[in-house]
Amino acid sequence: MYDLMNGIGNHEVLIATPHHGPDAFIKDLSQIEKLTGVIIKRMRELKKDQRLKYVLIFKNHGKAAGGGNIPHEHLQLIATPVTPKRVKEELVGSKRYFEYKDRCVFCDMIIQELDQKERVFLEIDNFLAINPYCSRFPFETWILPRKHSCDFDTMSKNEIKSFSRVFQSTMRGMIKTLGNFPYNIILHTSPFRRRKKKGYWETIENDYHWHIEIMPRLTQVAGFEWGSGFYINPTPPEQACAYLKETEKSE
Amino acid sequence: MYDLMNGIGNHEVLIATPHHGPDAFIKDLSQIEKLTGVIIKRMRELKKDQRLKYVLIFKNHGKAAGGGNIPHEHLQLIATPVTPKRVKEELVGSKRYFEYKDRCVFCDMIIQELDQKERVFLEIDNFLAINPYCSRFPFETWILPRKHSCDFDTMSKNEIKSFSRVFQSTMRGMIKTLGNFPYNIILHTSPFRRRKKKGYWETIENDYHWHIEIMPRLTQVAGFEWGSGFYINPTPPEQACAYLKETEKSE
Repeated sequence: MYDLMNGIGNHEVLIATPHHGPDAFIKDLSQIEKLTGVIIKRMRELKKDQRLKYVLIFKNHGKAAGGGNIPHEHLQLIATPVTPKRVKEELVGSKRYFEYKDRCVFCDMIIQELDQKERVFLEIDNFLAINPYCSRFPFETWILPRKHSCDFDTMSKNEIKSFSRVFQSTMRGMIKTLGNFPYNIILHTSPFRRRKKKGYWETIENDYHWHIEIMPRLTQVAGFEWGSGFYINPTPPEQACAYLKETEKSE
Repeated sequence: MYDLMNGIGNHEVLIATPHHGPDAFIKDLSQIEKLTGVIIKRMRELKKDQRLKYVLIFKNHGKAAGGGNIPHEHLQLIATPVTPKRVKEELVGSKRYFEYKDRCVFCDMIIQELDQKERVFLEIDNFLAINPYCSRFPFETWILPRKHSCDFDTMSKNEIKSFSRVFQSTMRGMIKTLGNFPYNIILHTSPFRRRKKKGYWETIENDYHWHIEIMPRLTQVAGFEWGSGFYINPTPPEQACAYLKETEKSE
């Protein structure tokens, strides 16, 4: 009934910058480009290990976000022999939407956000930073490529440059608005596709669209959220976005 | 495709005790019995409102658990016009297990725990407190009735007395071991069943088994947990249980 999970995997720490200190990581564009390159390199390398199904890239910053006491900026990579539960849920949801609409849900979100404008924080080249409709958290921000693609690790050199610029500008803007705020960053990308399986595997290239979720941890996740899977967010995304844009313009 | 949600519901604060202070709630057994009675009364009352589908009862204690700055012990009740996502997931999981085994998954867990003993913290009358197999959090503790029942609000007077005793002893033991620790308590019970619907509705009386989850918030939920839905728990439940029992015996 259930897949048995092997006790194998990888856990790697990716050091974000040679410079010590809380902002060093965001200041240097070329360093963000390098780091993106390293992530892609590690993903491609780990893909060769047939036992692994997913590479989860994340960053915890600040105590409230589980960032611990290591002030030198770093990311983490955990490779698992199964596709994680939350990743599967998103893949299944994306597949259902595609079946219903014959379009990618993320492409549709991008069209809607560009049309309504009030939740688009930044637009640089072919990348967007948005405060998504019905955000779970105050100032939750997603970065998405406009070009449909399910794999983070297929970005071209030029795309890496644009992505790094939008990432830097987004983080800078958020820090300018929120100060040295606690956050989790999670890369949402496709699992390794070993062979065509049923379900979300068959159509993943159409259904899914990689993106980055930046989750400020300004409010506590408590009993209601745990018990329901619903989130109480006191800051509507439209308001968060207006605030980010306003601060951006100011000196 | 999706249910539209009405903007209605109830949010109630249940004051746990007339006495001020962090432990007042746990000290007085008759107060726990009264409080249990009040919860049941409110659930039965809210069931009459046909627009409501679920009553979530929870308690946040301590800053790390979203407990805020109200030192007077209280619980919260949130009634929703939909069955919450997490509740549905548990109902669907329970249904699947029943279809596979022809037995309730929680009844099976109880049999297994009583057989293996190493994760049973307390057994009082017909109630158990266990540190469940593969707990997500250090010292996670569940309270379950041995008698199969899907609804918290169908307890008899005697059952309320036994439940209150096991709840008090469990909380006392945990406080003795962990000090004034941050925690979330969540009551897992069935949604209101208005009419027979397909899916988990048809078989809920067989599939589901109410219980209480006490989740100490000693570790941070960070990027890995958010991105994967998996939990890193440094304290195996067997060890937590041994520790709780040991402290229990000591003076």
